[in-house]
Amino acid sequence: MPAIEFSVATTDARARTGRLKTPHGEVETPTFMPVGTQGTVKCLSPEQVRSTGAGIVLANAYHLMIRPGAQTIAQCGGLQEWSGWRGPMLTDSGGYQLFSLAELAEVSDEGVRFRSHVDGTNLFVSPEEAIKVQNLLGADIIMQLDDCVGFPVERYRAEESVRRTYAWARRCRDGHARDDQALFGIVQGSTYADLRRESALGLVDLDMPGYAVGGVSVGEGTALMREVVEATLELLPEGKPRYLMGVGLPSDVLDAVAAGADMFDCVVPTRNGRNGWAFTLEGLIKVKNSPYSRDRGPIEEGCDCYACRGFTRSYIRHLFKAGEILGLVLVSLHNLRFYGRLMEGAREAIRDGRLEAYRARVGAAFGG
Amino acid sequence: MPAIEFSVATTDARARTGRLKTPHGEVETPTFMPVGTQGTVKCLSPEQVRSTGAGIVLANAYHLMIRPGAQTIAQCGGLQEWSGWRGPMLTDSGGYQLFSLAELAEVSDEGVRFRSHVDGTNLFVSPEEAIKVQNLLGADIIMQLDDCVGFPVERYRAEESVRRTYAWARRCRDGHARDDQALFGIVQGSTYADLRRESALGLVDLDMPGYAVGGVSVGEGTALMREVVEATLELLPEGKPRYLMGVGLPSDVLDAVAAGADMFDCVVPTRNGRNGWAFTLEGLIKVKNSPYSRDRGPIEEGCDCYACRGFTRSYIRHLFKAGEILGLVLVSLHNLRFYGRLMEGAREAIRDGRLEAYRARVGAAFGG
Repeated sequence: MPAIEFSVATTDARARTGRLKTPHGEVETPTFMPVGTQGTVKCLSPEQVRSTGAGIVLANAYHLMIRPGAQTIAQCGGLQEWSGWRGPMLTDSGGYQLFSLAELAEVSDEGVRFRSHVDGTNLFVSPEEAIKVQNLLGADIIMQLDDCVGFPVERYRAEESVRRTYAWARRCRDGHARDDQALFGIVQGSTYADLRRESALGLVDLDMPGYAVGGVSVGEGTALMREVVEATLELLPEGKPRYLMGVGLPSDVLDAVAAGADMFDCVVPTRNGRNGWAFTLEGLIKVKNSPYSRDRGPIEEGCDCYACRGFTRSYIRHLFKAGEILGLVLVSLHNLRFYGRLMEGAREAIRDGRLEAYRARVGAAFGG
Repeated sequence: MPAIEFSVATTDARARTGRLKTPHGEVETPTFMPVGTQGTVKCLSPEQVRSTGAGIVLANAYHLMIRPGAQTIAQCGGLQEWSGWRGPMLTDSGGYQLFSLAELAEVSDEGVRFRSHVDGTNLFVSPEEAIKVQNLLGADIIMQLDDCVGFPVERYRAEESVRRTYAWARRCRDGHARDDQALFGIVQGSTYADLRRESALGLVDLDMPGYAVGGVSVGEGTALMREVVEATLELLPEGKPRYLMGVGLPSDVLDAVAAGADMFDCVVPTRNGRNGWAFTLEGLIKVKNSPYSRDRGPIEEGCDCYACRGFTRSYIRHLFKAGEILGLVLVSLHNLRFYGRLMEGAREAIRDGRLEAYRARVGAAFGG
């Protein structure tokens, strides 16, 4: 029996709603995954994350491998048991973190040699090692190690990334030792349409249980990203989940939902929350701005989150001015609930065949 | 009708259980009040504070007067409405903060001239002003402005403090404009038994709705503190709540409960929590110590708090090592629940006439 089951429920043009069954529970798609880089969604308890409507949480194998170590987590019963998030989880293999965080990373066909961003230790991650780590962590969905490139990138390097990522997908598959975890492949190819095609077709041929679009939102801009995402999603099988990695702003998410993506992750709601920026259907507002000092309204009128039900803009502004942690908590919570509502709205709009109108409404607030 | 009603339910030697009715709800005594200095119990939501069994929360008029200002809070419906803690609250007048925090404070019979610890502004607080601020904030129990002294202090200064605190109590009473707030007097007198007596008898003569023991836990040590607290509590009326300010460690709290105190506040549980020190019936443990790296047990076996029900020492240690805010939240929450259980245990022990045995058990863990 496969680790996950995915079924499409309804469609609206290329968009679809679906259901993803995992060993730790079911998730309705399209879904937005809060990012719990170090095994915790920053500032929030699992109970608070759950209250935002999130169904599946992401954690970064790269960070957890370095601290506290995958063996430690395995000995504590695996990621779900250890982190207190008892629902579905996905771990990122670390390809993107190696590309963006590690010092002096050197990529070869063997894998990636790098220095820990925590203590400078020399480390090496091969595709096999990335899977071994994720097998120890025990998330429901695990990601292949991929060879990430930035933007712009020369064609020869994008070609290398596509071929290496394909070879690594095979090695990850061969090294994968647990049948209760689904291994997803990652399409690379930068902004070269033919390379994206080559990458997608190669991976699809491996018949993996799901596919991700990687290497986007790395500086190429909204228009080009949208083009690449649309073209890539079209190449991926209908019957399997499609995960757009690291995206993004509400309008970018809905663009990709319209193009048929099912899963998303991004630090945008939580990072903005910690900086005092709140998402609303009127756009982003900076809660610590002085116009709000005596504002008795909630962050966002009509929002049903704990922050909006119990606290005013005046109070939350005070928390930020006074350096109180509850401020970070409340705006992070609200922002994740905003994304939760965004996805609930998207699923409802798809079911009702009116996703275009919904996109237009959200896009207006975020200039999308 | 008085703002509060207090009744003693059961007694065990000089200890007693009671019930305190306030406009925002009832509290069982003895009770420990979590400290919400800036209108928030650090790191925790009101919902989380409530879950620890806390019935009444303290906020500091001094801090709130400076930021965001009492008018702002009044315009937002008062402290309870504004802070989201919809239960009973008490505000400290600021006497102790002026003594400990403000730069260049100058005390005279008129009041206290000082510079804001936030922006250096020159400010002046008289007894009338301290009450005006607290009338605007709207807590159920408010405190007179008192003239705090440290330890050791020369007799002439302690005498001055007692006489000034008495004069200020009268001025606070005369300035007090709301009958839905109970104004408590504060006994001073340092460690001089006759001055404590003079202070207590003077205030009792004013027939205030409750009395606090101030000016303890300022460096005089446990033995001397206990002596002063016992002697002072004995002078206070049976039928009114007795509040021991700024105390303390579990064994100090139980000593004072045995001597007849009903209310307590202290930053110890939350400040220790943020530093990774957890209270348990085995004593304080430092959760980020390495022996706990693979410890699958909760912070404290048998504790029913959210942190202990859902998370291991291994995970909480990781949160501290990784600098994640959830670590501060979980240990703060546990520590307040520890104090919540401590007080529940004390009330039960008083009802069963076995407070001495209970004190001995807790004292053993904390060297009391």
